[in-house]
Amino acid sequence: MENRNNNRRSFIKKTALGGLIAVSMPELLSAAMVPSGSEKNTLGKDNVVLFQGDSITDSGRNRDDNSYNNPGVLGSGYAMLAGAALIEKYASLNLQVYNKGVSGNKVFELAERWDKDCLDIKPDILSILIGVNDIWHKLEGNYNGTVEIYRNDYIALLERTRKALPKVKLIICEPFAIPGVKAVDDKWYPEFYSYQKAAMEIAAQFKATFIPYQRIYNEAITRAPGVYWTGDGVHPTLAGAQLMAQAWIDVVKA
Amino acid sequence: MENRNNNRRSFIKKTALGGLIAVSMPELLSAAMVPSGSEKNTLGKDNVVLFQGDSITDSGRNRDDNSYNNPGVLGSGYAMLAGAALIEKYASLNLQVYNKGVSGNKVFELAERWDKDCLDIKPDILSILIGVNDIWHKLEGNYNGTVEIYRNDYIALLERTRKALPKVKLIICEPFAIPGVKAVDDKWYPEFYSYQKAAMEIAAQFKATFIPYQRIYNEAITRAPGVYWTGDGVHPTLAGAQLMAQAWIDVVKA
Repeated sequence: MENRNNNRRSFIKKTALGGLIAVSMPELLSAAMVPSGSEKNTLGKDNVVLFQGDSITDSGRNRDDNSYNNPGVLGSGYAMLAGAALIEKYASLNLQVYNKGVSGNKVFELAERWDKDCLDIKPDILSILIGVNDIWHKLEGNYNGTVEIYRNDYIALLERTRKALPKVKLIICEPFAIPGVKAVDDKWYPEFYSYQKAAMEIAAQFKATFIPYQRIYNEAITRAPGVYWTGDGVHPTLAGAQLMAQAWIDVVKA
Repeated sequence: MENRNNNRRSFIKKTALGGLIAVSMPELLSAAMVPSGSEKNTLGKDNVVLFQGDSITDSGRNRDDNSYNNPGVLGSGYAMLAGAALIEKYASLNLQVYNKGVSGNKVFELAERWDKDCLDIKPDILSILIGVNDIWHKLEGNYNGTVEIYRNDYIALLERTRKALPKVKLIICEPFAIPGVKAVDDKWYPEFYSYQKAAMEIAAQFKATFIPYQRIYNEAITRAPGVYWTGDGVHPTLAGAQLMAQAWIDVVKA
């Protein structure tokens, strides 16, 4: 319960930060999901959509297969579910949906494989979810990261991306956790909030769409317990993955 | 093209049979999907949902695991996608979604494993998609089936199910194929139509919800080619599976 309360305070604080406190939850979400002053990301004919990130994106995909649009290469998480929804809804656009998430990755590890696993694929829409390992591996004593390293590495990665792919549309997914569920204990807070804030600020800096997954999970745990949505506080269940896919599909249009 | 035309004639014929010819496609679909005079299937707290069928339902699920609600046991097809949508949308109901489809099955093979793979699971909602192998294996010379055998076996299976589970809500999925795509050649027609008609009539007889998947695929191939929706005319791609999952989720409500 204490964790739930902490979580709720965080939500209200962030809401105030965004100046959106007076609107209802659905309005709040949709307002927060697209960059201010801009439209939803528009999909075009033959567009390439790339999901990038860590294990949450990876979700057991077959890394030896470079194809697209099939469940084997898309894994069994939100990227596959969002991909399925994309290729059905926008069938006439002939989209190519790739997933190149790799379990355990932090930002600098995305950078190490970025030419092959992002720039060479030439995405029209690039969606990135990264950050939970940047703090988690540190808390476990396996990594010497800080939020400044996270922020600087992330900015460098996006500058490099924009330089190589000037027209790419960016979607930055907020890293999230469910406090009190298994792996996610008090040690994560308040430090984890600074990673989430960094992701949001980087999205604004690059005029990227920001998907506020922490808020989405905060709302979800009013419908079912935390373990219903993530088994360990970090990795989504199928229900959690669907929750994420739906929020993702809402930030694009034809 | 000839196959497409055949298919279209069948569609119009079936439409006339249902007396629904004057309504538009979306109305037609929603009208056809629920049994006449009844409501959508209502889901209740802790309900068990079971998907049964052949390879289209199976879709690579882990058959050694008897758990529910996770992608491993739900496979990578329409049952998993519908399951994901179900457990997200109706999170507060704490549903249990199972998939017990087995690749290659015909109706009599469902019957052989029905105690263990259906009745023991005590579904509140039972969804069955069966029929394509009943004709396909015959066309390939590996099975001596007829539409009468399909019909009689299917009726016997449902009578047995209703006897063991008097309150079960039944969803009968129409077997479908995309004419002209790989495995589905002229030899399938007009015989395959008689299997589809049998499934529809059995649904009516048992006051089951009927999901008209042939019509749904017929509409889909106006948006993208047949191979976009099924690789071989029979097995759905991820896009085809999502198409089916969406139609499925539309026939239930909380």
